[in-house]
This record gives sequence, C-alpha cells and structure tokens, in this order.
Amino acid sequence: MLKAVYEERGPVPEDVIHAVETETPAPGPGQVLVEVVAAPINPSDVLTLTGDYGMLPPLPAQGGNEGVGRVAALGEGAEGVSEGDIVLLPVGSGTWASHMVTEPRRLIPLPAGADPQQLSMITVNPPTASLLLSEFVDLQPGDWVIQNGANSGVGGYLVQLAAQRGIRTVNVVRRESAAEAVKAAGGDVVLVDGDHLAERVAEATGGAEIRLAIDAIGGEATDHLADCLTEEGTLVNYGMMSGEPCMVSPKSIVFRDVRVRGFWLAKWFRNADRDRQKALFGELTALIAQGKLKARIHATYDVGDIKQAVAEANAGGREGKVLVCPAHGG
Amino acid sequence: MLKAVYEERGPVPEDVIHAVETETPAPGPGQVLVEVVAAPINPSDVLTLTGDYGMLPPLPAQGGNEGVGRVAALGEGAEGVSEGDIVLLPVGSGTWASHMVTEPRRLIPLPAGADPQQLSMITVNPPTASLLLSEFVDLQPGDWVIQNGANSGVGGYLVQLAAQRGIRTVNVVRRESAAEAVKAAGGDVVLVDGDHLAERVAEATGGAEIRLAIDAIGGEATDHLADCLTEEGTLVNYGMMSGEPCMVSPKSIVFRDVRVRGFWLAKWFRNADRDRQKALFGELTALIAQGKLKARIHATYDVGDIKQAVAEANAGGREGKVLVCPAHGG
Repeated sequence: MLKAVYEERGPVPEDVIHAVETETPAPGPGQVLVEVVAAPINPSDVLTLTGDYGMLPPLPAQGGNEGVGRVAALGEGAEGVSEGDIVLLPVGSGTWASHMVTEPRRLIPLPAGADPQQLSMITVNPPTASLLLSEFVDLQPGDWVIQNGANSGVGGYLVQLAAQRGIRTVNVVRRESAAEAVKAAGGDVVLVDGDHLAERVAEATGGAEIRLAIDAIGGEATDHLADCLTEEGTLVNYGMMSGEPCMVSPKSIVFRDVRVRGFWLAKWFRNADRDRQKALFGELTALIAQGKLKARIHATYDVGDIKQAVAEANAGGREGKVLVCPAHGG
Repeated sequence: MLKAVYEERGPVPEDVIHAVETETPAPGPGQVLVEVVAAPINPSDVLTLTGDYGMLPPLPAQGGNEGVGRVAALGEGAEGVSEGDIVLLPVGSGTWASHMVTEPRRLIPLPAGADPQQLSMITVNPPTASLLLSEFVDLQPGDWVIQNGANSGVGGYLVQLAAQRGIRTVNVVRRESAAEAVKAAGGDVVLVDGDHLAERVAEATGGAEIRLAIDAIGGEATDHLADCLTEEGTLVNYGMMSGEPCMVSPKSIVFRDVRVRGFWLAKWFRNADRDRQKALFGELTALIAQGKLKARIHATYDVGDIKQAVAEANAGGREGKVLVCPAHGG
C-alpha cells in the first residue's frame, strides 16, 4: 500500500509531504480493511503541512482528513459493514493512502449509488458553507449575503445552499476568468474584487441591505467586504487565502458598527451535540447523493503523486478541488 | 472676539485651521454671552480637520466640540443661569473661541469650586472610557482588561475608572518614557508594545484570563492585543492613532474565536435614553469635581495660537491633553 506522510512542517508543503510504500496490513479481529476511493486536499490540509493551522498533529503524521472508501476485507468477527460497502472514512484519520485498517463503528455507511468523489468532500467544506449561512445572522428568504473566494470549495457550496434557501448571493472573485463558473453555479451577482467594490455591489443589488459578509481571503479583501455591509452587519472570516491577517478600517467597525467574527469548523464539532451533527450531515449527504450539491474537481492524483497533488492544491488559479484517488489496479 | 475656523479639510490639520477676529456679539433677547474658559483638542477634532472622522460638519466650520465657559452677560429676559456661572458648553458648538452666544437651556451648570480645565474634557473622553469598560463584556471586580494607547486621554481615564471598579488593567504603551505616568495613574501592569507581548502579559498577570481588549491604535497593535485575549474574548477598537486599519489574524479570530467590535461615542449618544446619559454624566461630573478623575494637561494655548495648538495635539510624544484656554484679559 501507499501512504502520504511527513516528518516535519515547512513553508513549501510539497517539500515535506511524500509517499511511502508499505505492506498492506491484514485486518485483525473486529477490524476491517478499507480501500480509499477518494480523499480531497483542502486548504486546511495545506496549512497543516506549513504549520499555520490552528490544530497540528504530532509528528511524524499522515496527511488527509476526510475521504470515502470501499470495505475490502473483514477481520474475524467484524460486524456492521459488508465487503463492498461505500463508507465515509473517520475524520482526521490520514486519508491520503491507498488503504487503511479501522474499526467498523468508526465508518459511516453512504448511499451506494452516489458519486463517491463528491461524497469524499462532505466533512469539511459543505458543513462550513452551511454553518456560515446559519450561525451568525438570522437570514430570511430574499436576504442578501456577500462572500469572497466565491470560486473556492466552500464558496461553491455556499452559492448552492444559499440558492436552495432563497438567499441571494453577491460573489466576489479575484479574477475575471473565475466569474463564469460562479454564475453557472447559481450566484446571483458576481463581481471582481478591486476599487469601489461597495458602490458596484450597491448598483448590482439595487442598494440592498447586506447583513452578512463571508471572508475567505484576509488582507485588504476583508475591508472591501466590510465596506459592503449595512450598519451593524457581521463579517465572518474562515480562511486566509491571501496569507495576510484580516484588515478592517475604523470606517466600518467604529463608524458603522460592523462586527468581525471568525468561524472554525473544528470548534463547532467540539461544541455541537450529536443530534445537531447528525441532522446537518444527513441533510448534506442527501443533497450530494441527489446531485443537488456538488463541487468541481480540478484533478485527481494517485497517492504516489502526492507532491504534485499538494503543489497543485496550493497553487492559485484552479477551478475546483484536487482529490487523491488511489489506483487500486482495477 | 477670536474664533478658530476652517474653510476646507486637508491632510495637515494646522494648515486648514486658523483664528479670525470678529466683534464680540451682544446677547439677544433670551440669550446669554459666555466666555469660553477651556476647550480641549481631541483626536476626533484632528480627524474632523483631516476629513477622516465618521461625521463631518458642512464647510465652513468652527473647531471644537466640548468645553467649559463662564456666563458673562444675559440678554433681555434670559433665565436659568446667572452671571459668573460655570457651565458646560453645548456639544459640537465650535468651542475653540473666546466667546459664544447661546440659549441658557443649552448650558449645563457645573459645580463652582471644581477645576474648569478638568471639567472641560468631560464630554468626550471620560464617557468613552466608562462605556468601553461597561458596554461589551460583563466585568467583575478582580477581572483584567488590556488596553493600548494607555497614556492617551481615554487611556488615562480608563485606568482610573477601572481601579475604582476593582478591575485590573494591563496597559500597553508605545515607548518606555510613557510607562511611568501610567503606573503613577494606577495602572496595574504597564508594558511596551512589541514582540512576544502575549507572553509578557501572561507572565506579568500570572496567566490571567483577559476577556476585554481596548484598542486605540490600529495596525499591528490591534493583533498584538488580540493575541493577549482568552478564547471568545472581545477586542474593541475606538481609535486609529497609527493611521492604519486594524489588523487581526485568523490565529485569533478563527482559531480562538476572538470577536472584534468598534465603539463610537456619537452612536451611543444617538441611542442611549436621556436618563442613562444623565446618570453617566452625573457620576463623571462628581468624580471630576472631587478630583478623583483627571487628565494630565500638556499645554494650553490662546485661540490666536490655534495652529500651534493643533499641531501639538496632532504630534506624538505628548504627556497629556492640549487645551484651548482663551485669554480674557484678567
């Protein structure tokens, strides 16, 4: 089997991650062997490799936090799953690998007919998009929300979930070439970031009151979004694609009482009770299985090509997610 | 009489403000003539001259937003005040002048024995300090708060008000020479901003949990304060002494759920009911009259020296407020 591991963290993520070949383990009593089908490379995975994430595993570590697998073999007395079942892999289990051995109770069965690549991305980005829309401002159908990084994974899910809830979106992208895909995904307004953004937003929305802004980028892009909010509006940051801290001017936070918050999915997982988590993932699984919620896929790579895969995931200008899809020889 | 006026706004505040001499008006029926005794130059006044404040008067305009005067003459039928009374001037009335004519109902009588220079600063900085301590986090005696710009006007009042409420303060200053005065005013901990601030704060406070940070400066100084807050702590910005927008990194707002807010006294005045305003100013007037709440005074200038006064107020390195104290020839 192949797995992608790292012994140290460093500024260039593809320099620290590498694939190693080991013997495929046999499942022990009560265990199962799972073949990994697909596992995404998320921005948080890249930040974990560079050491910039809020929670870092002890070293050495295996990469990958989410993914989908197929049950390949059951150990003696293993129960609860059958060979061939499509399952969600345990969160944070090191999913950039061709195989893993685990206990059946840590696997969540998934609908058999659904696209496993789409399901492999369910744990991180879709709940982030859903919770950004629900946890900060009480939005009603017809309300507007503004986001930047609109062509990111979270951004794409957010456009689709907002549309399903009757919420209208202003989507800010960093380059004109990204605009078309966001419009195609259902974004109501798509604008390129830059000068006079607030005026352009007001023009495009007919002067709509915007009470929620969602920032994936940081730096000056944060202030541009804050400018677009109504008095007492809330700006929520959840990413730092610019690599810079959020900037917010007194014009917004002092004179217009804009509030700045952050969102971290890991904290939500820590605090939300089991029933809320089940309800959220039940809803998202159904939407993905029905094809009503999806992400674009930029490229897929075998575990052996993990350096190239991570470099690609860390580069700008992508249109969609990079997935690790291990080759299983058939 | 002399008054300080400006016809345009511009980046160098002392270039736009200037004194003009006009005939001292006689009070009309029901009016009074007031001699201005003292009127401070606040950072918000400087930002009004440069055009960077959140609320700008139409041009041409007269400078000065608060101050204390002495009733000099009553017009026919004027009631409610007597010649010689010490009074608070109307907020925003253009107090950088030797005289003003107004209606008695717009004047608030002040205790006769108190220091009029200290009372002249009551409307802007003391309520800001008081409300920063009360409006965002429910602080209890023994709790800690951290502020930067600790040797500013608001900073000095905040140290004194916190001490009176049993709240302990970590005070951050930008230069070592400012530390002594903050300690003398009752600051529990005084540190110079810079590297590893959070570690130094933890050491000085015995690892105390700090739930409120108060930022007068912006730029990287904001992020340094945010670093010192406990998880879910609140940072409130009310000034931009650095001239830069606030910077906050995802390390604080995403991974530790720090919340960023702004405070603007003008908005509080708009929303707080009359009784709350009276209660707050009653408390502050008593403290100032009793000498329990005071600000250092860096220098006083006649209205004719307004350019020098404003330049001095806008310069760094001051120890105290600059006041306009018109010469009244005895």
